[in-house]
Amino acid sequence: MTNIRHLVEPENFTLEEIEDLIDKGLSMNADPKPYANVCQGKIMASLFFEPSTRTKLSFDSAMMRLGGQVLGFSDASTSSTSKGESLADTIKVVSGYSDIIVMRHPKEGAPLLATHFTEVPIINGGDGGHQHPTQTLTDLITIKKYKGKLDGMKIGFCGDLKYGRTVHSLIRTLARFGNKEFYLISPEELTLPSSLKAQLEKQGVKLIEMRYIEDVVEELDILYMTRIQKERFFNESDYIRLKNSYILDKDKIKAAKSDMIILHPLPRVNEISNEVDTDPRALYFEQAKLGVYIRMALICKLLEVGPYARG
Amino acid sequence: MTNIRHLVEPENFTLEEIEDLIDKGLSMNADPKPYANVCQGKIMASLFFEPSTRTKLSFDSAMMRLGGQVLGFSDASTSSTSKGESLADTIKVVSGYSDIIVMRHPKEGAPLLATHFTEVPIINGGDGGHQHPTQTLTDLITIKKYKGKLDGMKIGFCGDLKYGRTVHSLIRTLARFGNKEFYLISPEELTLPSSLKAQLEKQGVKLIEMRYIEDVVEELDILYMTRIQKERFFNESDYIRLKNSYILDKDKIKAAKSDMIILHPLPRVNEISNEVDTDPRALYFEQAKLGVYIRMALICKLLEVGPYARG
Amino acid sequence: MTNIRHLVEPENFTLEEIEDLIDKGLSMNADPKPYANVCQGKIMASLFFEPSTRTKLSFDSAMMRLGGQVLGFSDASTSSTSKGESLADTIKVVSGYSDIIVMRHPKEGAPLLATHFTEVPIINGGDGGHQHPTQTLTDLITIKKYKGKLDGMKIGFCGDLKYGRTVHSLIRTLARFGNKEFYLISPEELTLPSSLKAQLEKQGVKLIEMRYIEDVVEELDILYMTRIQKERFFNESDYIRLKNSYILDKDKIKAAKSDMIILHPLPRVNEISNEVDTDPRALYFEQAKLGVYIRMALICKLLEVGPYARG
Repeated sequence: MTNIRHLVEPENFTLEEIEDLIDKGLSMNADPKPYANVCQGKIMASLFFEPSTRTKLSFDSAMMRLGGQVLGFSDASTSSTSKGESLADTIKVVSGYSDIIVMRHPKEGAPLLATHFTEVPIINGGDGGHQHPTQTLTDLITIKKYKGKLDGMKIGFCGDLKYGRTVHSLIRTLARFGNKEFYLISPEELTLPSSLKAQLEKQGVKLIEMRYIEDVVEELDILYMTRIQKERFFNESDYIRLKNSYILDKDKIKAAKSDMIILHPLPRVNEISNEVDTDPRALYFEQAKLGVYIRMALICKLLEVGPYARG
Repeated sequence: MTNIRHLVEPENFTLEEIEDLIDKGLSMNADPKPYANVCQGKIMASLFFEPSTRTKLSFDSAMMRLGGQVLGFSDASTSSTSKGESLADTIKVVSGYSDIIVMRHPKEGAPLLATHFTEVPIINGGDGGHQHPTQTLTDLITIKKYKGKLDGMKIGFCGDLKYGRTVHSLIRTLARFGNKEFYLISPEELTLPSSLKAQLEKQGVKLIEMRYIEDVVEELDILYMTRIQKERFFNESDYIRLKNSYILDKDKIKAAKSDMIILHPLPRVNEISNEVDTDPRALYFEQAKLGVYIRMALICKLLEVGPYARG
Repeated sequence: MTNIRHLVEPENFTLEEIEDLIDKGLSMNADPKPYANVCQGKIMASLFFEPSTRTKLSFDSAMMRLGGQVLGFSDASTSSTSKGESLADTIKVVSGYSDIIVMRHPKEGAPLLATHFTEVPIINGGDGGHQHPTQTLTDLITIKKYKGKLDGMKIGFCGDLKYGRTVHSLIRTLARFGNKEFYLISPEELTLPSSLKAQLEKQGVKLIEMRYIEDVVEELDILYMTRIQKERFFNESDYIRLKNSYILDKDKIKAAKSDMIILHPLPRVNEISNEVDTDPRALYFEQAKLGVYIRMALICKLLEVGPYARG
């Protein structure tokens, strides 16, 4: 590899690269066999300075499905960081132990910093409330598989739009793909940050804010639900008051189109009622599954193996 | 796989299936080489919502000896469960990341619940004080290897017969195999639960309760020792008073037959004196080792690979 | 394997064996491909009764680069030890689950004890303040690669020479290789223990103690820096006063030879200024990397595979 590539934020890839990655991921999903050994002999270091079982297991599964191996830690408390080591040093050392690094870190910018000290590709597995680019890719591969395209759709986002980084990242990326209208359904306290709104509107994107799912559900192609994360609230009473405000149930999607799809980054607490799970439009578990395949494609791209092997 | 099978409790398998599993496990023990790659490309998710290093390592070893890979967690505190996710959701997602799931959970019934939401086979690695079916299989494979049969034997159980789930499960299963007499050696406070006694007696099983190992040791074919688990007691003083009551030493087995075998599910604290370890009848470490082979056979059965591959 | 070998302390190997191991490690470093599968089907148990991410990941990487698999734990709190199991029992059981065991333990002598109960080779990954033999091997492989030999050099050790076990072990081993002069640079409170000094001087080794790096830096072939470990101090104020006393910066190495090499066992806190990292003489990250290769050679030696396969 002459130029090491990293994925710190979705903007690191061109639209063509993202579409290509999605297509490769869908091929792997359709028939994973040809890829079962493309990472044989390769090691992924999985450095979770902040716990996130879901993301960790998804990456571990992706690397293993490619025939690679995984080492790392799921909790910084046992790492050398606790002895006062700098992130730069940790990355320098671990990049000598592995072929690719996935990291999750509580501090914004940590993965970007890591790219300056590594000898191997870095994948951002989430940095604080900042970026979580593989979640965005997971959302996109699901949209592409079930809607057949990535643009020209009416998309509603519901829940915590203030702190939910997955929403911010997905809106920005969908806007890059040419989507011009987004429906933002949230309580007043949890609307999209005004800086992001300003940035999007400057790009010609129309943001329509509203309070209730029912106000717009019949027009939507995609309804993206999010968790009201307890840890983002400063006090318990606000959390309790708001968490139940935006629960999706069968009633609320009665008027929706038959081919509207319902997405959620998971884990959910109760923002989607279990009765919705059996609705054919509910794709959030399929979405989690597709997350493995897009990560497989991503690992191959950054390691230049399999479908991304250099002639 | 058209019909996914699970192992939640020993009763999920017929006696023929159990015997067949034991035979396959013994073949693997005799010569593991032919099985070294039968799980290549397969992923086992190892979900330990409650820590149990012993059981986890045994399963991990089994899967690795078959050429498969393992992902998961050894402690629920870092899992999505701590963000309020339901077990059903965790299972749905993880069954998209893996080919088979082993789970240990503090709540009785959790593995049974999991079978309703999974797309892959579930193995119960212990649910609270309820079931621990692979321990039972481990006990059985050891008995079969060293006694040559599973029925018609005089079996003594010693120690904590009240809370020790491994004892309950093993007695029930040995009764299914036609054993009609069990010797129950325990302090009065830790005798077999009366509901289980009633159930067994209804099946024609004779239960002989006693206080001392010496009362019966010379008649036994198998002496099954158990740990007096501190965590099962409500107060410290009861634990201290009782834990030393049933310590096996050289003296206590002087009168035993030369081919009596001594089993223990491990870990032991001090209920078997170290001096017994070198006695040829002491098989508890061999038993732990055989636990890997019966788990290898079980994984093959549920995944329908290796000796269980479909024509 | 008829006679199982272990690595508890460097003295377990003859000088010839150590040199051979280093040569094999350097071959693996030069071209790892021929070794990519020599441990296929082998399992390493990695038992960290005390956390040490650095050491664990290095061993994990070594085993994976040889095509083997790894199971174990990174923290004793979840192990059976917490249920009162003896180390002897844990080792007996785990040696039935694996082909080789790496262990780190807070108690001195634990790995030696383990060798009495295991059926597979044991590698000491650090026992309290006692031994850490693979760090010594890591230091030696780096010296051999960059100085071309293991004897006849002027070597300075700087920092915590009292508690730093890596220093003790390395000096002892370098003395075995015929090095006769060591420069010991430390605050008065952290000089080499007098028992070790006496032992070395009895062997004809000259120990020159000093307070400042600048006193000797221009004569050195090797400068070995160490961390002032907070956890070795009894009070905070001593630590704060001393930790900054021995910080290596560009100024302090101005007078050094152009081929002097700077080593450090890592992790560092601030005892080497970042500005030194880009100096070609700074080899501590390369040293960490070489640690994987010497461990690969070690695993092969103890398992008698690859370059150590029996005819």
